[in-house]
Amino acid sequence: MAVSKSLQAYRGDLLDFVDDPFYVSPEESLRYIPDGLLIIENGVVKELGTYENLKDKYIDIPVTSYPGMLIMPGFVDTHIHFPQTEIIASYGEQLLEWLEKYTFPTEAKFQDKIYARKVAGIFLDELLRNGTTTALVLAAVYPESVDAFFEEAQARNLRMIAGKVMMDRNAPDFLLDTAESSYVQSKDLIERWHNKGRLLYAVTPRFAITSTNEQLHLTGKLLEEFSDVYLHTHLSENIDEVEWVKQLFPDCRDYLDVYDKFGLVRERSIFAHGVQLSDDEFKRMSEANATIAFCPTSNFFLGSGLFKIEKAKSLDTPIKVGLATDVGGGTSFSMLQTASEAYKVAQLQRQKLSPFQALFLATLGGARALSLENKIGNFDVGKEADFIVVDSQATPIMAFRNPEATAKSLDELGDKLFSLIIMGDDRAIRATYVGGVIANG
Amino acid sequence: MAVSKSLQAYRGDLLDFVDDPFYVSPEESLRYIPDGLLIIENGVVKELGTYENLKDKYIDIPVTSYPGMLIMPGFVDTHIHFPQTEIIASYGEQLLEWLEKYTFPTEAKFQDKIYARKVAGIFLDELLRNGTTTALVLAAVYPESVDAFFEEAQARNLRMIAGKVMMDRNAPDFLLDTAESSYVQSKDLIERWHNKGRLLYAVTPRFAITSTNEQLHLTGKLLEEFSDVYLHTHLSENIDEVEWVKQLFPDCRDYLDVYDKFGLVRERSIFAHGVQLSDDEFKRMSEANATIAFCPTSNFFLGSGLFKIEKAKSLDTPIKVGLATDVGGGTSFSMLQTASEAYKVAQLQRQKLSPFQALFLATLGGARALSLENKIGNFDVGKEADFIVVDSQATPIMAFRNPEATAKSLDELGDKLFSLIIMGDDRAIRATYVGGVIANG
Repeated sequence: MAVSKSLQAYRGDLLDFVDDPFYVSPEESLRYIPDGLLIIENGVVKELGTYENLKDKYIDIPVTSYPGMLIMPGFVDTHIHFPQTEIIASYGEQLLEWLEKYTFPTEAKFQDKIYARKVAGIFLDELLRNGTTTALVLAAVYPESVDAFFEEAQARNLRMIAGKVMMDRNAPDFLLDTAESSYVQSKDLIERWHNKGRLLYAVTPRFAITSTNEQLHLTGKLLEEFSDVYLHTHLSENIDEVEWVKQLFPDCRDYLDVYDKFGLVRERSIFAHGVQLSDDEFKRMSEANATIAFCPTSNFFLGSGLFKIEKAKSLDTPIKVGLATDVGGGTSFSMLQTASEAYKVAQLQRQKLSPFQALFLATLGGARALSLENKIGNFDVGKEADFIVVDSQATPIMAFRNPEATAKSLDELGDKLFSLIIMGDDRAIRATYVGGVIANG
Repeated sequence: MAVSKSLQAYRGDLLDFVDDPFYVSPEESLRYIPDGLLIIENGVVKELGTYENLKDKYIDIPVTSYPGMLIMPGFVDTHIHFPQTEIIASYGEQLLEWLEKYTFPTEAKFQDKIYARKVAGIFLDELLRNGTTTALVLAAVYPESVDAFFEEAQARNLRMIAGKVMMDRNAPDFLLDTAESSYVQSKDLIERWHNKGRLLYAVTPRFAITSTNEQLHLTGKLLEEFSDVYLHTHLSENIDEVEWVKQLFPDCRDYLDVYDKFGLVRERSIFAHGVQLSDDEFKRMSEANATIAFCPTSNFFLGSGLFKIEKAKSLDTPIKVGLATDVGGGTSFSMLQTASEAYKVAQLQRQKLSPFQALFLATLGGARALSLENKIGNFDVGKEADFIVVDSQATPIMAFRNPEATAKSLDELGDKLFSLIIMGDDRAIRATYVGGVIANG
């Protein structure tokens, strides 16, 4: 056959999800092709199958081989703060005090666009080192910080969603916008960045505590004016926070109801945490087809509590859930380490989170959580070719624990993936490809 | 001065503890010597001080320099199973089912001494890669597994404590000893290994559930006959376990009382976990000067619960506490990662565990927990020279988070150590020295 120069072939153990393993069996949800071949054309998936079946068809293309390694879709991180990169692992506080002591003073630096670009670059490279190719990102309150982020993301051809933090009260003066300025600035940023190449915009009020009614009202107005932008905020993370919201919005039934009153609870609305949600709030989230970003390392680190992952994924009130690092409240950029802590969150509630479920959340589940499943999340033909090469023998102890490189049965695969989740970190990410081009490795 | 050939000098930022930061201030408990010099003679600490003050005195000795790195005492892991190395990160169970499904079948392999030596070697090298130089270790039920372990530890000149697991009921037949055989075999092992070089013996009934009254009685007899051996077992880890103990020992007031009735609760008795302890049990542990090995990664991973570290270290019922990985129930050989999870255990209870407290538990606190503070745990003159070189900039994100290599104030040091704990792993251990000789790095 005539082979286009833009064709590329990658050989390894292909692994992705075609359905949700919380609702169907591993056999039905998983696509595992040991010694497979992934064909990319012009940055999207053209075909995949076993090497044996496809090798003759693509005999003229050079093959990049990763023997004994997994080739998986890039990870999707559904909630992370780029200006908090430098305060990861800051000591001793729970949410509200942590914001006061570490977050607010640090975010003030991001008015300086040069500084913001520098940190955005480091942040994106760290994501890529950890195999994360798409993230939903909070910038700082300054539009410059959003420009800086999108410019760096664009330079790396990344599919990224981000937005300017809106906050017009209950924060230091130097960080506050106004309802009006936040509306104008967000609108300008949407017009300049939303759907520009692979970039997307999220309207981003920090959380109910730092927004006036007027700002939340204008947030809703932006969502009406630009129907396909995202809404990204925090929800019900910490007990003291929930209590304060109750005082600030005495007329609202619960925390979620604050956002609901302003039309912010709908598809493409991503709420980080949801640790303290009531049954009513779970029900409403489910009805609205909104998303929770589950942030286990952060919820441990800030002492927020245990997210009810089993309830969120139950058939009664099914909610779209993505996994998220929540750096700087989270402690790692690694979605593997994040999945490991997610397992521990489940165990502490006497629930089981299978390795298939955890990796689903980190890939196709994340894509669905961000309504991007038609673009990323697995290797369906036509999807954007963001993928990673994963080495389950990356450290001496992992190699001892996993003496066989390639899993030969579903049980073996589950065991390998589980140990990868529990023990893996950035070292397990041998390479990261973005749109079919190597970006790290 | 005349300089002995056996003298060695190490230059770096020296850090150790001279007292307990749970009870005195960081200033009183910490010894921090930026750009210090550590002088070793014949495998023990001869002197330490600033490089500036000591350089002329030791002008004839070549200096091994680790600029900008911390030089700390080796870590002490107070509870770990060497035969479980290969089942680290096994999926889906809580304690009792985990033993049935993973532990028991695996431990059966350790009757084969050749296999046991191989795994013991891998295990010890992994400890050294992670900066752990002393551990309290469970072997398997077979005396061969203990010989294998001690032979490998001896070959590396390590100060290690270990013992044969005793269990004569409630486990598969192929793993059971008898009360009598466990007594005879343990006695023989004590006579052959206890105080042989740096090795020490721990009488090791697995836990109350797998020992008959007769076996526990003979355990007490061994402690009487060999007054300076250790007692090492599990205590009150999991709710179902506690319930079963209640049924098996209806005459005992509580779980600890089972051990107490047989004379097993005293100094040099180390009880792993203690997650479910009652106030009475805390009180009794304190009175008896017994030790708890706090195993945070394991307690998360097996869903056991949150150890009450603040209560254990309270002035009301002060208990000697060591930090422990509990591999294979624990998820990492790294005492840094273990300290990170310990912080999260505290946070989930709205308590703070400072970086000084956490590192104390991993060094001098561990030595005290094992009644070895006259031999290891800090750099007091005459202590055995087991030390590690720690790089708080070991990964790109750690280097970004910690741009200054050497901390210049107590605040800076606390911040650096905290981020080291939260983000560090085996990569942060640049070198491990045992008795003044490099063992890894």
